[in-house]
Amino acid sequence: MEKREQLYEGKAKKVFLTDDPECYIVSYKDDATAFNGLKKGTIVGKGVINNKMSNLLMQKLEKEANIPTHFVEELSDRETVVKKVSIVPLEVIIRNIAAGSFSKNYGVEEGVVFEQPTIEFSYKNDDLGDPLINDYHALALKLATEEEIETIKKYAFAVNDYMKAYWKERGVILVDFKLEFGRLSDGTIVLADEISPDTCRFWDAETKEKLDKDRFRRDLGGVEDAYAEIMGRLS
Amino acid sequence: MEKREQLYEGKAKKVFLTDDPECYIVSYKDDATAFNGLKKGTIVGKGVINNKMSNLLMQKLEKEANIPTHFVEELSDRETVVKKVSIVPLEVIIRNIAAGSFSKNYGVEEGVVFEQPTIEFSYKNDDLGDPLINDYHALALKLATEEEIETIKKYAFAVNDYMKAYWKERGVILVDFKLEFGRLSDGTIVLADEISPDTCRFWDAETKEKLDKDRFRRDLGGVEDAYAEIMGRLS
Repeated sequence: MEKREQLYEGKAKKVFLTDDPECYIVSYKDDATAFNGLKKGTIVGKGVINNKMSNLLMQKLEKEANIPTHFVEELSDRETVVKKVSIVPLEVIIRNIAAGSFSKNYGVEEGVVFEQPTIEFSYKNDDLGDPLINDYHALALKLATEEEIETIKKYAFAVNDYMKAYWKERGVILVDFKLEFGRLSDGTIVLADEISPDTCRFWDAETKEKLDKDRFRRDLGGVEDAYAEIMGRLS
Repeated sequence: MEKREQLYEGKAKKVFLTDDPECYIVSYKDDATAFNGLKKGTIVGKGVINNKMSNLLMQKLEKEANIPTHFVEELSDRETVVKKVSIVPLEVIIRNIAAGSFSKNYGVEEGVVFEQPTIEFSYKNDDLGDPLINDYHALALKLATEEEIETIKKYAFAVNDYMKAYWKERGVILVDFKLEFGRLSDGTIVLADEISPDTCRFWDAETKEKLDKDRFRRDLGGVEDAYAEIMGRLS
């Protein structure tokens, strides 16, 4: 596959066109941002870890949980071929345990375990600060159809079921995570973006130590070590 | 019915105990607040209008739309006997047209008409600023049961269907409104709080003039006249 001109540069990834009109190449950077881009930094080696973890998890989800994904082929440490999608402008967040914006917005201590996982959507719009949005709003704004929303919810809960068990076996609690979905050119909904310590909260099951981007967001130190540690749990 | 000690004073109403343990007396004030209490003022005559409008609409909803309400008996211009309820801590907002916080949060011009009405919940909590919350969050926080949430949604959409038609006949567009529901001592969900220009956006169908609390919130002037005008449409 031939890499052609850059289509887009995001906060953590670049996307390139290829000679296949239905495929892109994604290149993972070490750049880290938080709080809608207000905080910026570098996490050395992050791009390699996120690329490899995301590819590994997406392949497992595809094979073992029957969830279609954008993954095609890992090209190198940082580069992967993915299916071309138009991203549904909804960030899909599943929570098993109270943390982050949930704790702040609703006055709930971090660590409270929910009886059932929650799902929520944010309207993916940097200018508006990715505000929380519900199904009815998303329909009113025509961000997705009712059928797409149902499919996305079904896949997101299935990702949670699979990943919770998968990480538990590796001594890790899956606290919450963010997914993005895309539409293939025929309209099929597939899991897109990435699954990584940038997009998941991972806590060590024993020590409750944070093994994710919260170490960067909250200046907890040991950011690179945490990324290496969580990647090591996969091996 | 004998009025006993004051149980509670809210932003716009006082609530009194009575000699009947299953009934309260509500007394409507002229005090107006906006932006979670940051803006304060008086709208002369508002208490009388809100009391009478709310009672009239609740009686109609009860008889003609089969929606149980807390209404028992109007005692005077400002005072009404209502059933004792424990309020479900969810503000229920139905929108037919983009306005207010929806327009601000999602970058949509006021006046955009939705194909279908939207419903949303805010977590009724002044300290947290009544944040938007979805069904899953409300369940996780145990604010209501799944069955209660379904009942509340069903009633709220039925209120919208009835009210939209009712106001249309009177030359008024029902833009959006906020409802609160309560539990009777046996757990039955009933419509509570009030339905008034404090809790609804009403626009004149011809001129699109605002006939509601937005005149106070946005310093548009003619606040008392607007309340009198919308009340007059009921006669």
